Amino acid sequence: MLYTHDIDGCLTDKVGENGLDLADLEKLLADCARGVERVRACHDDGSLPLLRLPAERGDLAPVGDLAALYREGFDHVVLLGTGGSSLGGQTLVALADFGFAPPPGAPRLHFMDNIDPHSFGALFDALDPARTGFVVISKSGGTAETLTQFFTCLARWREALGEAALPAHFLVITEPGDNPLRRAAGRWDLPVLDHDPGVGGRFSALSLVGLLPAMIAGLDAGAVRAGAARVLDPVLAGAAPGDCPPAVGAALAVGLDRARGAATTVLMPYLDRLAQFGMWYRQLWAESLGKGGKGTTPIRAMGTVDQHSQLQLYLDGPRDKMFTVLALDTAGAGDAVPPSLAEDDALAYLAGRRMGDLLDAEARATADTLIANGRPTRRIGLQRLDEEVLGALMMHFMLETILAADLLGVDAFDQPAVEQGKKLARAYLARMAAP
Amino acid sequence: MLYTHDIDGCLTDKVGENGLDLADLEKLLADCARGVERVRACHDDGSLPLLRLPAERGDLAPVGDLAALYREGFDHVVLLGTGGSSLGGQTLVALADFGFAPPPGAPRLHFMDNIDPHSFGALFDALDPARTGFVVISKSGGTAETLTQFFTCLARWREALGEAALPAHFLVITEPGDNPLRRAAGRWDLPVLDHDPGVGGRFSALSLVGLLPAMIAGLDAGAVRAGAARVLDPVLAGAAPGDCPPAVGAALAVGLDRARGAATTVLMPYLDRLAQFGMWYRQLWAESLGKGGKGTTPIRAMGTVDQHSQLQLYLDGPRDKMFTVLALDTAGAGDAVPPSLAEDDALAYLAGRRMGDLLDAEARATADTLIANGRPTRRIGLQRLDEEVLGALMMHFMLETILAADLLGVDAFDQPAVEQGKKLARAYLARMAAP
Repeated sequence: MLYTHDIDGCLTDKVGENGLDLADLEKLLADCARGVERVRACHDDGSLPLLRLPAERGDLAPVGDLAALYREGFDHVVLLGTGGSSLGGQTLVALADFGFAPPPGAPRLHFMDNIDPHSFGALFDALDPARTGFVVISKSGGTAETLTQFFTCLARWREALGEAALPAHFLVITEPGDNPLRRAAGRWDLPVLDHDPGVGGRFSALSLVGLLPAMIAGLDAGAVRAGAARVLDPVLAGAAPGDCPPAVGAALAVGLDRARGAATTVLMPYLDRLAQFGMWYRQLWAESLGKGGKGTTPIRAMGTVDQHSQLQLYLDGPRDKMFTVLALDTAGAGDAVPPSLAEDDALAYLAGRRMGDLLDAEARATADTLIANGRPTRRIGLQRLDEEVLGALMMHFMLETILAADLLGVDAFDQPAVEQGKKLARAYLARMAAP
Repeated sequence: MLYTHDIDGCLTDKVGENGLDLADLEKLLADCARGVERVRACHDDGSLPLLRLPAERGDLAPVGDLAALYREGFDHVVLLGTGGSSLGGQTLVALADFGFAPPPGAPRLHFMDNIDPHSFGALFDALDPARTGFVVISKSGGTAETLTQFFTCLARWREALGEAALPAHFLVITEPGDNPLRRAAGRWDLPVLDHDPGVGGRFSALSLVGLLPAMIAGLDAGAVRAGAARVLDPVLAGAAPGDCPPAVGAALAVGLDRARGAATTVLMPYLDRLAQFGMWYRQLWAESLGKGGKGTTPIRAMGTVDQHSQLQLYLDGPRDKMFTVLALDTAGAGDAVPPSLAEDDALAYLAGRRMGDLLDAEARATADTLIANGRPTRRIGLQRLDEEVLGALMMHFMLETILAADLLGVDAFDQPAVEQGKKLARAYLARMAAP
């Protein structure tokens, strides 16, 4: 396995009365068999295309040249899109780009997922139009925020470089068929890549929506899918739910909410490179499950940072949470605190230790302290972090979410409640003074 | 006032049974009078020094030269510190630095608040030692993460530039008296600025801990304090709790939790520049109130981004939340969608509209939709965002937190639960193979 999945700290035996009884977990796992069976059926009949992506490679080669053009031709690549059209790419690109400097030989990538005019003003100030490319992503082709971003950028680049230059600077990903974004792309002769309408935004990280930005950043998109396959394949091959970590995770989350009121689920990675992963997970879980009064509220915490911000609440506040501590074995990594610099009795515990030693010790100590304080905590452990492992984690949480939805009896793939606000925003826009 | 504070959407009359009855609010406001009185007494007898900071200016001028040295002398300034030693500075600096390019005439600021060896490796790769300065912040002078950051950086810079160069590249902020960081600073002749031990980490944004980074970024530290004073002064002058927005906010949060089970409080700014403010607030609220089984869980959401991630859950998931939508009037700001580019019937609603128009319409639509779905929502409105307004918002939420703690009967200023994990981490470090 590409990761370990240790749930002992969520069980009554270990964490006490706030944990789940093993018997309850086993009952939920039995219920989970139905969801696992559905996943297999949806894979086999092709009705859930995201489950076919891990084994697919044919779509990657044709876009490799386009990714290389963007990678080699630009200093900056701006990704326009929001929600599921942005978070998967952000999550993957975090493997390569830490924000301090562009990765060697690659452009800086800017994921613009908001419509704050102040941010766009600052972005425009920082960009050289000739050295900047755009990737515009909207599944429906009608997302108001993305269209607004797109047209304001298009206007500026047309002004700066002329109309003939636009097809080399703008690239669109959207569904096949007629939609406003595709019509505009046609009018300006912009290249368009098709997105499969059967792959919903929050489940699209393994499609080009997530993988094209990753390829522009120089990552191995095939390895991301191969890692996802390593998690999906045992499920498809008929493993029992108790042997599928995503099924175990789904049963735990639903069981702890039902039996112990764990209405909040905290994902706490101890790696900066998984900060965006936490935000991706947060959409996946909330938007898939939060309906009809059901669902639990996801929180992305960061180790060690939130030890100095949220841990007091987690340990001694209301007992309404479950925790997932996600850590990489970092012992021995990083610079050491040189004993000759830290000659101080109070610092003896640090002298000679490496930064990764302390990170490793703190991740373990936080999980153990949560458990010792009766807070249900699972641990996911990594030996390395690369494209394959990240693909595996993504598939783990997509399956965990789909299986949790099945247990809750909600549709993991819709988001009906958000339409009302979209309509109201249009109405308010219409009521503003005429432009 | 520098901001408007509209709580109608939290009251039963407007939001229905999930809201607070006006009579309950008034009772809580009466209870709040005791806390307000305590705030006044603590200001007058000097026992809560953070309340004296808004009127203080004498400490700023002497550090102006040091800030200018860092501002003018370096391309990169690295801030080492975590929790309250980092979040206040991050929040303020977000007014000037949007991450796309350094602000004109100023260095890039890197807030390193974690101990991930991978991130430090990438940071070191991006820095030119001669053009980089460090600000090391630890109130106690004994924070393990900050000391590890400090010594590993010190070793690299000594290696690169020699020992004599260190005092020009490292600057320390810590409490007076003997502590490991101060001893190390003494050994290497590094300049040290004193931090008042009476100002706790999460309440330190208005001290040099927050303001020195702000000054390095070119911001007006005096204006931050002046804005804070505009919120504090009416409280000190004897205003009734019902006329103090922080008291009203505290009563609302406590009342909605008690009466309606609003165990989660979501702060949702519709401005990218307040993204870090949300993280600062999250520490302030969680660490101050989360004790003895009490407190509510803060979540930082972002408008419009989380409309595409969390809004489905917020509108149709469990009714266990209150919301604060924090928006700037952005109508008319930003580029327009040129009608000549968006000639499409489906885009008529966008043609000619500015990016800020859409942002403004969406902020209002989201708040209204939350209320229409029975989710208690207050609105904080801004006409502009600058140092003064941000200082006012900081003081608002510090007072709101202190007054909520008083209503809950918890100590806002301690964090006893986190000690256990720190001890365990040291024990695990000691058990690792000898370095």
